[in-house]
Amino acid sequence: MQHHAGAEDLSFEVGTALEAGPGRHGRSGVIHTPHGDIATPAFIPVATKATVKTLTPEQIAATGAQAILSNAYHLYLQPGHDIVDEAGGVAAFENWDGPTYTDSGGFQVMSLGVGFKKVLAMDTTGLNESDIRAKDRQRLATVDEDGVDFKSIIDGSMHRFTPEVSMQIQHGLGADIMFAFDELTTLVDSRAYQEQSVERTLRWAQRCLVEHDRLTRAREGKAKQSLWGVVQGAQYEDLRRHAARELVALSDAAEAEGRRGFGGFGIGGAIEKENLGTIVGWACDELPASKPRHLLGISEPDDLFTAVEAGADTFDCVAPTRLARRGGVYTLDGRMNLTAARFKRDFRGVDEEFGGYVSENFSRAYLHHLLKAKEFLAGTLCTIHNVAFMVRLVDNIRSSIEGGYFDAYREEFLGRYYAHGGRAPEGR
Amino acid sequence: MQHHAGAEDLSFEVGTALEAGPGRHGRSGVIHTPHGDIATPAFIPVATKATVKTLTPEQIAATGAQAILSNAYHLYLQPGHDIVDEAGGVAAFENWDGPTYTDSGGFQVMSLGVGFKKVLAMDTTGLNESDIRAKDRQRLATVDEDGVDFKSIIDGSMHRFTPEVSMQIQHGLGADIMFAFDELTTLVDSRAYQEQSVERTLRWAQRCLVEHDRLTRAREGKAKQSLWGVVQGAQYEDLRRHAARELVALSDAAEAEGRRGFGGFGIGGAIEKENLGTIVGWACDELPASKPRHLLGISEPDDLFTAVEAGADTFDCVAPTRLARRGGVYTLDGRMNLTAARFKRDFRGVDEEFGGYVSENFSRAYLHHLLKAKEFLAGTLCTIHNVAFMVRLVDNIRSSIEGGYFDAYREEFLGRYYAHGGRAPEGR
Repeated sequence: MQHHAGAEDLSFEVGTALEAGPGRHGRSGVIHTPHGDIATPAFIPVATKATVKTLTPEQIAATGAQAILSNAYHLYLQPGHDIVDEAGGVAAFENWDGPTYTDSGGFQVMSLGVGFKKVLAMDTTGLNESDIRAKDRQRLATVDEDGVDFKSIIDGSMHRFTPEVSMQIQHGLGADIMFAFDELTTLVDSRAYQEQSVERTLRWAQRCLVEHDRLTRAREGKAKQSLWGVVQGAQYEDLRRHAARELVALSDAAEAEGRRGFGGFGIGGAIEKENLGTIVGWACDELPASKPRHLLGISEPDDLFTAVEAGADTFDCVAPTRLARRGGVYTLDGRMNLTAARFKRDFRGVDEEFGGYVSENFSRAYLHHLLKAKEFLAGTLCTIHNVAFMVRLVDNIRSSIEGGYFDAYREEFLGRYYAHGGRAPEGR
Repeated sequence: MQHHAGAEDLSFEVGTALEAGPGRHGRSGVIHTPHGDIATPAFIPVATKATVKTLTPEQIAATGAQAILSNAYHLYLQPGHDIVDEAGGVAAFENWDGPTYTDSGGFQVMSLGVGFKKVLAMDTTGLNESDIRAKDRQRLATVDEDGVDFKSIIDGSMHRFTPEVSMQIQHGLGADIMFAFDELTTLVDSRAYQEQSVERTLRWAQRCLVEHDRLTRAREGKAKQSLWGVVQGAQYEDLRRHAARELVALSDAAEAEGRRGFGGFGIGGAIEKENLGTIVGWACDELPASKPRHLLGISEPDDLFTAVEAGADTFDCVAPTRLARRGGVYTLDGRMNLTAARFKRDFRGVDEEFGGYVSENFSRAYLHHLLKAKEFLAGTLCTIHNVAFMVRLVDNIRSSIEGGYFDAYREEFLGRYYAHGGRAPEGR
């Protein structure tokens, strides 16, 4: 792996910008971190439990991935952030020689339950707000002004996260980029609840800034970590804009007082696919162009173009790795599932036009065999393919911005990818 | 991976021999195959279903492994040897750029059942021959003069293997080295049954030679495969010696008639650990020094020394890969299981003195975490470690033969490995 001359603290350089307009803030750039640079836009693979599932660090690097994102909730529960801290932080623990992100745990403490997940997936058929809240109370988290009580998904034990606890965990994990602790709401929460929640998330952001500043001073000698505030506000334009403006104000005020401000911003919450660009655009209208922006958790190739156009610089997503373990692979002509019987004697690579390690070295027939035989190597190879596919797609998007042909590239790529509804045709 | 200038057909060069004596035929050497050389003694990792479980071909090569062994039974059932044949053989199918072996399927058709496995593991407490035979009949294989009927472990469907079928499958798989189809007996079979079985296995060996010769001619243009006869005879000296002598005679007769003979020999059957050296020694007393010998399926480090001393040139074993997936790892001080709580904060490598990729890059604490979190990467990393450990151990044995210090190396290695009963002490 490449060794980078690390920056002392995080900084961001804007490269080429798309022609700007309301809600259109796409650009290329470079995030300098103490552990190396991230050329943006960049796809950040998810390493939930300090491992991009099935891959060694060398295999992750070979996909072209520049940074990986772990989760504070999972690593707090297992093995414990204190152990990761003793190991020298999450990058040292997993032997990843590059930049790292950690998510705050806010999403997970409130979402790791079946009933709630359904709502996040926008499957609200037949549910109303009181149903959801009842389900929440049964199995999940209780939010109060100070923080959140939740049940461990591992052993059912009770735990409590506050903004301060999230900062302490994320300092223990020691990622270059971390996020403020926020409340996740759902689309079926009332407008009144969303308003209260946004205000609470802003108060939590302020507490995160204070605790982050304290911990940074207390842990002198450690690599500098950058805290990013998270814009919530669900599907409401006024709430999203308000949240973004207030986070910027909190950051500016902290810096004016000689404390650390936000090094960048996250855009979070449950967002319906059809509103993705609009909502990211609202946030980016209000956020300073000088700081990087991360969109938390998106899924489909068309979402990448939409998010980049609106102004997201980096984004993470579990879809490429999760799909891969079940045999779902991306191709230039859409997705296909290699467990299908038609691949039994198909000796072509997964996508010979796309190329890459997996397509050049293994046949669909071999991957089909490994999947049917439930061999571990199936997940590894499909994961390498999918992560490399996503990383290269976003690399190409970056080139298209820098070359001035973003719109043409989007039309070409998505036109082909979705020609058959996003599913690769049988013949391919 | 290294590309080898392949030999046209298999050949063997003896290097340095241990001081010989009855039952002591250890030596170093080189097996030349059409897909590269194997410096012997060599440990051959098992790739049952055309994958060394969890590892990419590059990861296998990085362990130092020179060749891998797949199984005719498993690949016949899934994906089918016809598909592997269409892919260009098992090496091309799995993208392994080196020599390959296939086992004949004889062991598996008769052993893949719980009752029988117990017997192979020498756990015959409370069982007598009629119990075993009854269990066999219930769930397993029926042996007749012509071949074996058996039930698929995948879907329970009925199949039949004969010597000819095994040859056809193994020609489809196209490995450099393959084995004659033999009957597996158990230690509780009667002496009379063992006698009948040895004779039948010899008749099957002859049928294998004939069918192998026919297929080699029929499949002109394919890389030449080498068929190795398998010495059976259980725990009986006279039967083992007889079987070995007869196999040599069959091979010589074939060659005298212008047909292909055996390129080497396998030593098979259920062998009690304490008789391993003696039984391999009987066989090697009778086998020509000019041909390589493979011991089928051994397990512990001390067995390696015993087998090598007696005269085995190569051997395979599933233990390193199977143990690894459950967190069992080899160290110079014995085996340890990384799932144990004492590794939670142990930031040392698995075996820093042994070194290698895994010990140099990951801590016991990280591997412990991956194992507890049931992450796939745990199996991959422990497998890399264990295979590299076994390969290097056998490489060291080879050097010790060539350097004239085999006995001293055995004493040193085993003395330390078994100082605590084969289990690494707590403090280590």
